[in-house]
Amino acid sequence: MVEDKIKSGDEPKDIKDIGITVKKSDDFSEWYTQIILKGELIEYGPVSGCMIIRPYAYSIWESIQEFFNAEIKKMGIQNAYFPMLIPENLFHKEKEHVEGFNPEVAWVTHGGDTLLPERLAIRPTSETIMYDSYKKWIRSWRDLPLRLNQWCNIVRWEFKHPVPFLRTREFLWQEGHTVFTTREEAEKEVYDILNLYARVFEELYAVAVLKGMKSQNEKFAGAVFTTSVEMMLPNGKAIQGATSHLLGQNFSKAFDISFLNKNGEKDYAWQNSWGISTRSIGIMLGIHGDDQGIVMPPRVAPIQVVIVPIIFDDTKDKVLQKCNDIRKELEKHYIRTFIDDSDYRPGWKFNKWELKGVPLRIELGPKDLISGKLKIAYRYNDMKEMIEIDTHHVVNHVIKKLDEIQNKMLENSRKILKDAIVSCNTIDDMQRIVEDKKIAYASFCDDRACEDSIKDKTGAKTLNMPLGQMEDHRCINCGKPAKLFYFGKSY
Amino acid sequence: MVEDKIKSGDEPKDIKDIGITVKKSDDFSEWYTQIILKGELIEYGPVSGCMIIRPYAYSIWESIQEFFNAEIKKMGIQNAYFPMLIPENLFHKEKEHVEGFNPEVAWVTHGGDTLLPERLAIRPTSETIMYDSYKKWIRSWRDLPLRLNQWCNIVRWEFKHPVPFLRTREFLWQEGHTVFTTREEAEKEVYDILNLYARVFEELYAVAVLKGMKSQNEKFAGAVFTTSVEMMLPNGKAIQGATSHLLGQNFSKAFDISFLNKNGEKDYAWQNSWGISTRSIGIMLGIHGDDQGIVMPPRVAPIQVVIVPIIFDDTKDKVLQKCNDIRKELEKHYIRTFIDDSDYRPGWKFNKWELKGVPLRIELGPKDLISGKLKIAYRYNDMKEMIEIDTHHVVNHVIKKLDEIQNKMLENSRKILKDAIVSCNTIDDMQRIVEDKKIAYASFCDDRACEDSIKDKTGAKTLNMPLGQMEDHRCINCGKPAKLFYFGKSY
Repeated sequence: MVEDKIKSGDEPKDIKDIGITVKKSDDFSEWYTQIILKGELIEYGPVSGCMIIRPYAYSIWESIQEFFNAEIKKMGIQNAYFPMLIPENLFHKEKEHVEGFNPEVAWVTHGGDTLLPERLAIRPTSETIMYDSYKKWIRSWRDLPLRLNQWCNIVRWEFKHPVPFLRTREFLWQEGHTVFTTREEAEKEVYDILNLYARVFEELYAVAVLKGMKSQNEKFAGAVFTTSVEMMLPNGKAIQGATSHLLGQNFSKAFDISFLNKNGEKDYAWQNSWGISTRSIGIMLGIHGDDQGIVMPPRVAPIQVVIVPIIFDDTKDKVLQKCNDIRKELEKHYIRTFIDDSDYRPGWKFNKWELKGVPLRIELGPKDLISGKLKIAYRYNDMKEMIEIDTHHVVNHVIKKLDEIQNKMLENSRKILKDAIVSCNTIDDMQRIVEDKKIAYASFCDDRACEDSIKDKTGAKTLNMPLGQMEDHRCINCGKPAKLFYFGKSY
Repeated sequence: MVEDKIKSGDEPKDIKDIGITVKKSDDFSEWYTQIILKGELIEYGPVSGCMIIRPYAYSIWESIQEFFNAEIKKMGIQNAYFPMLIPENLFHKEKEHVEGFNPEVAWVTHGGDTLLPERLAIRPTSETIMYDSYKKWIRSWRDLPLRLNQWCNIVRWEFKHPVPFLRTREFLWQEGHTVFTTREEAEKEVYDILNLYARVFEELYAVAVLKGMKSQNEKFAGAVFTTSVEMMLPNGKAIQGATSHLLGQNFSKAFDISFLNKNGEKDYAWQNSWGISTRSIGIMLGIHGDDQGIVMPPRVAPIQVVIVPIIFDDTKDKVLQKCNDIRKELEKHYIRTFIDDSDYRPGWKFNKWELKGVPLRIELGPKDLISGKLKIAYRYNDMKEMIEIDTHHVVNHVIKKLDEIQNKMLENSRKILKDAIVSCNTIDDMQRIVEDKKIAYASFCDDRACEDSIKDKTGAKTLNMPLGQMEDHRCINCGKPAKLFYFGKSY
């Protein structure tokens, strides 16, 4: 159940006041802000960049948690919780890591009126605090693998303009931190988790992804390599959806996470970390929404089916009875269903639930009880159809259709992503492609300076490099040996 | 599945090194620390008072979350997430509230190298940040009730000696914050939630509670009244388990949370807040544990059944096959089961799983396959029995027994609590009772100065006042009209 109240004055506002007033294609940024505020997903808080995740959005996150927890538990990964406050000295142990995160750390200096002896960082990520304990727990190969995950809040004090979900100073995520005896085991997990993230986007969010390896410039601060899933927003900006890192032995050497191997010799452990955040909700909203508002994919929709009864005084009971029959039967099949029997006009309700992106709407009035058919409206393609009113028939039809909607939305996202990718062989072409709000697919040597040079010339940076490339190419910029990378303007 | 690794050196330590070395009755504090560290529930972090909740403890919290979420969702309460950082000015809006929490707020002063224009409090509780938004969302009686909950971390910079779970500077909790049009509706919810907390302790933790109303001195800073569930630890100290507050209109007036009622007049809303934290895990551990270590009640036990195969080379496969048959069948009934087939001695394993408090252990070796019986050992009463080895029989027996253990543990806790309560009529008696590590039950006028006076004389403060008292009494200290309260020394 989500809030179904109108949020101003005693009388409901007209739909034009709550409706979306710009076209997605005309002003993506304003459109995005409107669907998120008017759809009651986010409220701005008093601190810039720290936003309230309202129930209608938090419920999406709960769907992701439920799926992800079940999958990682099957893999033998356990949940835990580590402190949020990290002493400054601990934070400084891994050189690249501290350089990467220091500029955006929020610092705690006082407890009550007392000045703390050492500043404490609010976690911008938890490698340092977790590995300080891992060191104590790991002595022998028998103690490995150690595979923990935590769901928590993160603070990164960015100074860029905040965007709900996509760039916020506080956000929610899960972070997995795992330790293995060998690089092979660790690498296998990096890709297993990468594939799991691809499933979260494709199967739950119905969002197509580019799966691959980040460039040297764009990898995580302290990692050997970073893999990612990347998406394309309709404003032509690429965005990173989730990352899975091979940390190698960088942290295990900095934190002395070593173990006696089966031969009784000391080895440094191999580590991974990986995370997906509430940013993913924003990506999904930006990709699927349309000029009427949000379009929720059924798997994560807080309300999957809304039933709007057409109410007249003399037939009210009969109509509500039938609506409740259908709701109960849908709920037996775990379909999240809501009957909107508030006293607003049906047209107002239709617009409201379209704005909120409910995948499937059932309309049912006294005429339908007589004719034996009811109307179903589909949010994602704006189609409507009349079907037999028999409860079991309705329920079976709805279940089938929700699956179909989920698949069609993913198909559509895949097509859009595929169409956005343009291969190119020259820097000039690349510049034109990214200015045309597309993704350039080009060969690149993966040299840090060369990526900086490409960015200077085109405004684009690498998204990632598709995995499993055998063929060698020549870098589009410097001519050195290269692989194919995706490039784009990005968040 | 939880870690089953031995955490030091390449060879397992002897059980005497990992076993509990003090008796609970001799030194509760040292005993408590040992079961929590050796049972792998907590690890100390680098910042005093900020502790790591390891998977074996976090899994208990997940059980609580699952139960509590299902119950509050039935009540129409939704989950959300509000920012952790609260601007100092917002925090100061409700006078009693800020006085109550200010001394223990952790303050953020810098983002990266930049001094913030205003200090930000890390939430010690979220009334202020949430009600700042509630004000925007509530205009009309149509917008009410508004009933939100969040699961989050909390920081309170206490300077008393930290105790794992029971007193930590960072902890996890849920906090519900609800708004109603009338005091009656709000009060009803206060008690509904209080009863839900009593169920969490009694049905999940198997811990008996004292349910009642806090005194004026001990109520929440900013509340009209506070209800609580209180428990008694074996060291004679009482402890507050969870609280449910009627905030009345104190915050709605401070934050201008008003609405137009059905007559078109402006009214201030009625509010509640309520919470239970990871402290509850510590209470459960302290109450149930014994000289061998932890005793987990089945409903929250991370592992409910451990199967220890007695392995010899020639019969290994057959024995493991049978163990796996039983495990699979138990898991079909959602019984959390673990087979310890590590290469340690059976006796070592028995001691380990007793220390970790697994409610029920199945021992199964080649002799049992021949005799057709296997041994079951019960953690809570140290009893053992032989039962028929048939898988379905074992599974049915185990399910029945887990229920029985849960009930017996609660019965036992109830008996201990009941025996700890001693009625008294004089201050001298009260002093003797609390020094004898009991709870005094005495009449009290609920005057703040009088409670201070009683505390000076006896060392005890009120725990709470049982609800529904009709009869009037005379205060044990000042002789004014009074009700019966529980008194004790407390955490």
